[in-house]
Amino acid sequence: MTTDSRSYSRQLAENARVAATELASITAGRKNTWLQSVAKALRNDIPTIIVANAKDIEAGVQSNLSSAMLDRLKLTPDRIESLAKAVEHIISLPDPVGEVIEGQRRPNGLFVSRVRVPLGVVFFIYESRPNVTIDAAALCVKSGNAVILRGGREAIHSNQALQAVIARTLIAEGLPQHAVQLVESTDREIVGHLLSMGNLIDVTIPRGGKSLIERVAREATMPVIKHFDGVCHVYIDANADEKMAVDITLNSKCHRPGVCNAAETLLIHRDAASRLWPRLAKELQDKGVELRCCPASQSMIAGATAATDEDYATEYLDLILSVRIVDSLEQAIAHIRQYGSAHTDAIVTNSVASAMKFESEVDSAAVVINASTRFNDGGELGMGAEIGISTDRFHARGPCGLRELTSYKFIVRGEGQIRS
Amino acid sequence: MTTDSRSYSRQLAENARVAATELASITAGRKNTWLQSVAKALRNDIPTIIVANAKDIEAGVQSNLSSAMLDRLKLTPDRIESLAKAVEHIISLPDPVGEVIEGQRRPNGLFVSRVRVPLGVVFFIYESRPNVTIDAAALCVKSGNAVILRGGREAIHSNQALQAVIARTLIAEGLPQHAVQLVESTDREIVGHLLSMGNLIDVTIPRGGKSLIERVAREATMPVIKHFDGVCHVYIDANADEKMAVDITLNSKCHRPGVCNAAETLLIHRDAASRLWPRLAKELQDKGVELRCCPASQSMIAGATAATDEDYATEYLDLILSVRIVDSLEQAIAHIRQYGSAHTDAIVTNSVASAMKFESEVDSAAVVINASTRFNDGGELGMGAEIGISTDRFHARGPCGLRELTSYKFIVRGEGQIRS
Repeated sequence: MTTDSRSYSRQLAENARVAATELASITAGRKNTWLQSVAKALRNDIPTIIVANAKDIEAGVQSNLSSAMLDRLKLTPDRIESLAKAVEHIISLPDPVGEVIEGQRRPNGLFVSRVRVPLGVVFFIYESRPNVTIDAAALCVKSGNAVILRGGREAIHSNQALQAVIARTLIAEGLPQHAVQLVESTDREIVGHLLSMGNLIDVTIPRGGKSLIERVAREATMPVIKHFDGVCHVYIDANADEKMAVDITLNSKCHRPGVCNAAETLLIHRDAASRLWPRLAKELQDKGVELRCCPASQSMIAGATAATDEDYATEYLDLILSVRIVDSLEQAIAHIRQYGSAHTDAIVTNSVASAMKFESEVDSAAVVINASTRFNDGGELGMGAEIGISTDRFHARGPCGLRELTSYKFIVRGEGQIRS
Repeated sequence: MTTDSRSYSRQLAENARVAATELASITAGRKNTWLQSVAKALRNDIPTIIVANAKDIEAGVQSNLSSAMLDRLKLTPDRIESLAKAVEHIISLPDPVGEVIEGQRRPNGLFVSRVRVPLGVVFFIYESRPNVTIDAAALCVKSGNAVILRGGREAIHSNQALQAVIARTLIAEGLPQHAVQLVESTDREIVGHLLSMGNLIDVTIPRGGKSLIERVAREATMPVIKHFDGVCHVYIDANADEKMAVDITLNSKCHRPGVCNAAETLLIHRDAASRLWPRLAKELQDKGVELRCCPASQSMIAGATAATDEDYATEYLDLILSVRIVDSLEQAIAHIRQYGSAHTDAIVTNSVASAMKFESEVDSAAVVINASTRFNDGGELGMGAEIGISTDRFHARGPCGLRELTSYKFIVRGEGQIRS
């Protein structure tokens, strides 16, 4: 870079601040027209985007990225079409800005309402999947926020090609050109500079590994919505339906083992264990799941290893499952409190009392009764697209969609009322 | 203190954590019974509380506290009765815990709802008014949170007497005894230790002077709800009703000049100024308000001084008012953006277009049309009691009542659904 990283960062933040002020009062109609433009331009630009992506893939091969990583990085015409469709889906979601959250007339005649407004400027740091670039830009602008995107180093060429689409359409549709900015450098200092600008940036959303999240939490001078780990549990209650228990455990563990809402630990009531654990273990093993078991569950099957205390606190993100047989629902809840990360925890039960107790005493972002942990997702919970799944309790918890990217203000309308 | 301040602080935080887990599932009925007990015990303990308060007053006199400060510190039987009534009012407010914020049935049959849960552990730091001790304890416990109270040094004896009431009634009603803890030492290091315990404390709420707020923002390792400054404006539009303009300006400035929602700056459209500024200025001066004016407004009246740029950015908290005549609504909005603190800003107008523009373009916690700025208050906005007025945009903005002391979780109920 020719300029130094601090002044470059400040310029990004100041540009974003100006864009945010303008964006806050742009109508849903204009934002949706822009989104339609983005979808169209993505389809038109498929050849250019593929060429840029090929550079990233080549660099990735040379630096020995895993095949899973390379797959995440890869853009194909089909994947770009899916991206365009995702943008069109965001058009269909209601604009959160201006939504009246609640309102009332006060005894003195004042009309009071609480109305959604954008947060302002979002600094979004994310991993290598280039599709996230488009999702984040679309969600932030639709919710009236300016966004500074800091994608993974490995995806820099792809992200530049996608950002070109965004920048061109912002200008063409008359939206603030700095509504979406991409950090065009992989200099890690820039992240530090931006994190120090709490007076210009309203929120930082980091998505990535533990060291990134911890760095952001430590250095940020603005609020942070963390997207941290999911040590998720499935608990099979004493009287659980066998088929349901098997289906939910397999789906929670195996459907997409590398994501945060996949199950990492299976807890089974001892009455259920004697009934269904050997069959369930076999089905898991048939799907290639490595089982790390407590002594009781290990003794009932073949081919399992012993679980350590550390296993129960680990987010494997892989085809590995910790297993523990418990004596009671209370013991299951205590285990979840001790080892879990309050992300997503499910119970399989036929007992209303167990369901109610689990629901009330497990304090996780999503508490699931008789369904897969995989449903903790913005789309599945009916919020539309999401920018991440918050593991914080403050402001936003669980999936962060359009509404979670807003704040609110109070509007008070009177006819001359004064306070006495 | 016999133990060192770090282990003392850790004990407070760990006690609070345990209490918070228990409190989260205590019913509204039991919490309300406790509140009733607190109100009764306050009335019974009037003599004891007055004796303790007298020690603070005596120490305050000896350390030359201002008469305004001494008045804020003082408890009388009437004021204690008001405290008991405030607690009874909190009984009448709905329990936020368990409130279903929204819910829907998904196409696959899942029932999804978003349900309020407590934030957890609140660390509340506040100034010398001892009545805040009771308000904060009542609001935190009613919303299912454990609270660590750090009151002003000047009120330590009063706070200890009030905490005795709280502790005794918590035990008597079978609530967790550490649901409310008072920092029993004035050692400033304890605040630093508690601010470092982001793994045990969920939110810090500081109420006090600028240096306290800045220290907390700098040191806190958990989210903070700041209660910062209010540089609030009244803007009188070209065609404003004269009586309304006068009433609202006087009330906003003079009703209680020392509080954050009092007006600090008056903006007047030049057409309104020629019509009503001389009369309004006289009424303000008759009430003892010192006027610091722009050249145009100064030239129209006697006895005003010239405003500096710094005046427009100052929260006087006193009978002083900055005044500026503007050429347009746009200029007024630009002034508010430049100098204001996004706390409370009011317009007096008869024009629907002006009202709509002001409402949409002024991004303050409370935007007020034809009413006093003094209405930005939890009680006045219909939220019941408040623990403070947030000057942040994140999580809570404006008055923080019971709901603002909560987070939420998603409850997903199914019949065996898995994700495909």
